[in-house]
Amino acid sequence: MSADLKAVALGGGHGLQATLGALRRITPDVTAVVTVADDGGSSGRLRRDFGLLPPGDLRKALTALAGDGADDWAGVLEHRFGGTGALAGHAVGNLLIAGLIEVLDDPVLALAKVAELLGLTGRVLPMSLEPLDIEADVEGVDEDPTAMRRIRGQVAVASTPGRVRRIRLHSATRPGEPPSACPEAVQAVRDADVVLLGPGSWFTSVLPHLLVPELHEALVTTSATRLLVLNLVPQPGETTGFSPERHLDVLCEHAPRLRVDAVIADADAVATPDRLRKRAAGGLGATTRLDVVAAPGAGWRHDPESLAKSFRAALAEVRGA
Amino acid sequence: MSADLKAVALGGGHGLQATLGALRRITPDVTAVVTVADDGGSSGRLRRDFGLLPPGDLRKALTALAGDGADDWAGVLEHRFGGTGALAGHAVGNLLIAGLIEVLDDPVLALAKVAELLGLTGRVLPMSLEPLDIEADVEGVDEDPTAMRRIRGQVAVASTPGRVRRIRLHSATRPGEPPSACPEAVQAVRDADVVLLGPGSWFTSVLPHLLVPELHEALVTTSATRLLVLNLVPQPGETTGFSPERHLDVLCEHAPRLRVDAVIADADAVATPDRLRKRAAGGLGATTRLDVVAAPGAGWRHDPESLAKSFRAALAEVRGA
Repeated sequence: MSADLKAVALGGGHGLQATLGALRRITPDVTAVVTVADDGGSSGRLRRDFGLLPPGDLRKALTALAGDGADDWAGVLEHRFGGTGALAGHAVGNLLIAGLIEVLDDPVLALAKVAELLGLTGRVLPMSLEPLDIEADVEGVDEDPTAMRRIRGQVAVASTPGRVRRIRLHSATRPGEPPSACPEAVQAVRDADVVLLGPGSWFTSVLPHLLVPELHEALVTTSATRLLVLNLVPQPGETTGFSPERHLDVLCEHAPRLRVDAVIADADAVATPDRLRKRAAGGLGATTRLDVVAAPGAGWRHDPESLAKSFRAALAEVRGA
Repeated sequence: MSADLKAVALGGGHGLQATLGALRRITPDVTAVVTVADDGGSSGRLRRDFGLLPPGDLRKALTALAGDGADDWAGVLEHRFGGTGALAGHAVGNLLIAGLIEVLDDPVLALAKVAELLGLTGRVLPMSLEPLDIEADVEGVDEDPTAMRRIRGQVAVASTPGRVRRIRLHSATRPGEPPSACPEAVQAVRDADVVLLGPGSWFTSVLPHLLVPELHEALVTTSATRLLVLNLVPQPGETTGFSPERHLDVLCEHAPRLRVDAVIADADAVATPDRLRKRAAGGLGATTRLDVVAAPGAGWRHDPESLAKSFRAALAEVRGA
């Protein structure tokens, strides 16, 4: 009767890698739900050339679940071709995932094949089965500091010198239409015991999950414990100068109905703990945990062991376990 | 005590695929030894960009051993990216093999990983651990029909409008030096119960194995039964207009010490059976089997079932089993 804890982590990129590195220490039943709005680098090239889901963040999630004592395959998938030729910069795993999606014509099945190759107990799902486009309203790009400009694409949004006010998510193939959710991702959130959001690039990796209508609904209505992990440092570009409280405000503006059980932040990264506690309680109905979760030495990266300890404590507190 | 028959097939490209398709019906213990002189297509681009072994023929041998009821992986490895972008024409398997070789820095280990992925009982080895260059003496390229010209590279030799007289094989990285053999390939030939040479592009896939000194020596001295499979039709370009006898002559000129137990040819592809028998007996000490080994309908492709039957009969005859 001691069924494994069903954990779902939503994100993209390095932030999701950190969460997955922690979660796989807690339970074998981890599902990663990954953003598919990337339009840069190796992923962006594959997306443009073949109309495929950008594979980079999916690959990173797969190898993060493979862990430290990883099989050679994880290293091979993460390997990037060097040189100056046509393949330069492409990660082997991106090419393999792209090939699998082309042949199997089913991203969920394709990712399951890679998970099997890596011997994973968990799984990786795309947030949507179609590539998505991020669009942001950004202030401070023009001479008039209050003028709002529309910026398109994940790379442009993540690196804008302006202040991102609001983002929207569109289907890349059905312009102007709301993004469709991957059904398995929606079901995973519904069935989960615990759901984790963040850390990561706030506008381009964390908030997008709340902008897919069916995924939003599942996140708002799931009976799972909801944990939100804040970033250690403001992301240069999209969240330059953002305080932890401002991260919460932005989240609430994009998902007013979302309630969260606990907000986890690094003790050293929070300048005004009382303000954060108040904002988390008021805006999200959440308690706040200030733990030491940064990797020793590198203050900008989460330590998986510490993060796992924090998750366990948060779960015990919330679920009374 | 009924140990599996140890079979080694040497070749490259489509001819080797045919042999492997037949051999895997006879024994689980099949080793493919594959030419690494290719300089064209996807393989050639990877070879030029990264100085790696050309992976195409290695990939084809791996998926040929995977067989018909093959796992999805074989289809994925054979899949070629389309479009007109940087990846157009690259087979997924070529990119994966290239990545594995870069990461593991060991072609034999890299190929073993792919064999494991495909669930193979057999294995695939490169003839050499370094990329090789083919050089040919070709007649009839100039106005003077007897003038001899030196042609370099597998693509150039395979498609020359002239008559190839003789080929040589060099290390691509140590110019002018003789090619080194992959030690595992040499050992496999030494330990084999049966060794198969051909069919395939005679000058660019079959003869090269006899031009790697250590592999040559192993082929000449092994106690294995030696079978030679002739082509169904002369290869346009390098062997345009070659009779079956001429194929044997060319082989003997490049490897005068080689003895063969049986030469296998398709009954319909041999115009002058008596001349072939005489030449096989005289030049190679071989008996000649004229079997129906072409695929029904397509007269230019071997049928694996028929070829397997012919191999079994040849082995029974030679080994008295």
